[in-house]
Amino acid sequence: MTINQNFLKLQSSYLFANIGKRVREYQAAHPHADIIRLGIGDVIRPLPAASIEAMHKAVDEMSHAETFVGYPTDYGLHFLEDAIQADYALRGVSLALDEIFLSDGAKSDTGNIGDIFGTENVVAVCDPVYPVYVDTNVMAGRRIISLPCGAARDFAPGLPQEHADIVYLCSPNNPTGTAMNAAQLQAWVDWANERGSVLLYDGAYEAFITEELPRSIYEIPGAKRCAIEFRSFSKTAGFTGVRCAYTIVPKELMAGDASVNALWARRQATKFNGVSYITQRGAQATFTPAGRAQVRETIAYYLRNAKTIREGLGAAGFRVWGGVNSPYIWFEAKGGMGSWELFDLLLGEVQVVGTPGSGFGTAGEGYFRLTGFGTAERTAQAVERIQRRFG
Amino acid sequence: MTINQNFLKLQSSYLFANIGKRVREYQAAHPHADIIRLGIGDVIRPLPAASIEAMHKAVDEMSHAETFVGYPTDYGLHFLEDAIQADYALRGVSLALDEIFLSDGAKSDTGNIGDIFGTENVVAVCDPVYPVYVDTNVMAGRRIISLPCGAARDFAPGLPQEHADIVYLCSPNNPTGTAMNAAQLQAWVDWANERGSVLLYDGAYEAFITEELPRSIYEIPGAKRCAIEFRSFSKTAGFTGVRCAYTIVPKELMAGDASVNALWARRQATKFNGVSYITQRGAQATFTPAGRAQVRETIAYYLRNAKTIREGLGAAGFRVWGGVNSPYIWFEAKGGMGSWELFDLLLGEVQVVGTPGSGFGTAGEGYFRLTGFGTAERTAQAVERIQRRFG
Repeated sequence: MTINQNFLKLQSSYLFANIGKRVREYQAAHPHADIIRLGIGDVIRPLPAASIEAMHKAVDEMSHAETFVGYPTDYGLHFLEDAIQADYALRGVSLALDEIFLSDGAKSDTGNIGDIFGTENVVAVCDPVYPVYVDTNVMAGRRIISLPCGAARDFAPGLPQEHADIVYLCSPNNPTGTAMNAAQLQAWVDWANERGSVLLYDGAYEAFITEELPRSIYEIPGAKRCAIEFRSFSKTAGFTGVRCAYTIVPKELMAGDASVNALWARRQATKFNGVSYITQRGAQATFTPAGRAQVRETIAYYLRNAKTIREGLGAAGFRVWGGVNSPYIWFEAKGGMGSWELFDLLLGEVQVVGTPGSGFGTAGEGYFRLTGFGTAERTAQAVERIQRRFG
Repeated sequence: MTINQNFLKLQSSYLFANIGKRVREYQAAHPHADIIRLGIGDVIRPLPAASIEAMHKAVDEMSHAETFVGYPTDYGLHFLEDAIQADYALRGVSLALDEIFLSDGAKSDTGNIGDIFGTENVVAVCDPVYPVYVDTNVMAGRRIISLPCGAARDFAPGLPQEHADIVYLCSPNNPTGTAMNAAQLQAWVDWANERGSVLLYDGAYEAFITEELPRSIYEIPGAKRCAIEFRSFSKTAGFTGVRCAYTIVPKELMAGDASVNALWARRQATKFNGVSYITQRGAQATFTPAGRAQVRETIAYYLRNAKTIREGLGAAGFRVWGGVNSPYIWFEAKGGMGSWELFDLLLGEVQVVGTPGSGFGTAGEGYFRLTGFGTAERTAQAVERIQRRFG
């Protein structure tokens, strides 16, 4: 038997493992150090009370033969797809139920989606980038090109200089925290439709949008002919530990004679067996009036932290992006300092842990990411410490 | 953009969709018909009480910031891997924690595992076969060959006549219900080790084994050098609607210089984000003394149904396999009748729905599958009806 040789081309260093190692070493050398972690993109607030209640009820249903639910895909239940459909309708986007595919996570889907496309396609990604887009396509053996991003254009990806068949767009962006506006998205949709390319639009952070911006790429005319959209309950409703996401594949999206929707339906029917019934009930509850209010409250909590960081760093003289429509704050190191150099300085001098921008790609060198996913108290402390050191 | 052309080679007809259509049509034409469904491989009994209790507790934990759990993979929690490790140890199989990979289902894993192997590998499968093994490898573009199975050898797969790099074995088998003994498995392990081939061992029905047979392929000397094992809580503990499984990739399993364990670890870290914390707590509870007793009770219920079917069909003069170490009963139609012919006859004359053997491959033609996943009352009724018609 032979292995998939493309795996040997993967970058072996793992960003967060490296961060973890440095933090552990520092903590071992300074056992009394009070370290504040604003590095990882994981949530910390409890689930919405509406979801908790719905999941308790669902667990009880699984304890009686009369209400027991087996394979999610066999039961013909589509209460969650119904709720998602209605949610899109609020933004003027009309979807058929079988254009909505539930899954256990947007990470899985943004990786697995490659199964339905030929390996000869050229893939374009931003730099800096969420590493999953790159690694899954390296595994598949596809050629990958970088889109022009960078500070000069506020990290919005520009159209590629050469041909690309598949383009990953993430907005609001991880890691830079910036969000694309309607004109920018329209340019991408027009570009893709002219070339028969497909846009893989990762909207996992959509719930953090506070400005007048599109929340779905399908708000852009023509997008249903060229775009697949990924969304998640992970950051929206704190479901990182519960696992639920959804992917929209419009029926209008064709590859020659082939329906991309039919291909993904076949892929999922063959390699996936649906989302936990209990999880689905929890996710459905986030669309109720009570659930929506609870979700908004949690998002507002993280956004207040993001604002604290954004304004605090700005006052300390840093150039800052993100934090308005995103939990992520992206800032430039001063004086040409490198990302890991700043990491070591922040850890060593003010005991704040963030994520070096260079971990997201070469264009991230000299930048740094902090997140709003901390407690309000610790976030304020971290900012004070940084201001004392740099202000 | 181009699609993965291999998808066009997939068989488009879908077995269970076709069955569903015929049943709906019959029911529409005979609205008062009392149809008994023993076709689908889904469970019907409630979850173990121990799992219900554990999941309620886990849901509560998710409602407080102090006990909230985010990304399962980031928390360093491995209580479920610990329990699985201890369970294997009871059978004399010693595993490291990082040889145990949790997932949302054995179906996902038996399909996704192909990501780490080259597309040039030749894949061998049984005929009849669980269709996922075939379809996922058609999607990847691999050549597929059939193993000699069939009634003459009680449907145990024989060694292939030509070279094979990857071999799917399923024991106890879906759909035939037969289980392989230690000598048969040893022959496979020796064959694979001599050739550097890998065995993909699907043990999803292991909990149904009642005779003195291996429950894990790792009970066979040499298996850690050639075999990956898939297991699931779906049929064991009724988790089809909850989604939890695990895959064992031993570190001794090498492909030249490459560690297959490291490849799968990288694949899962990139394309998967862990199993729901709530689900994991429910799964862990199945390994407690109370949980084990409840699981045994449910399995015994389904096996009593299987015995009812097996003995009833035997008394009616059918040649029958399975039903002893498996919830599945596989039998031969009489008088050279075809599988779909028998399907229509059973539906039309005794209103019993099963699964045509030909739906699992050409060698299944003339055979038929029934399952023990019904209620005891309805199962007995179905058998009586078949006996009245055929006895």
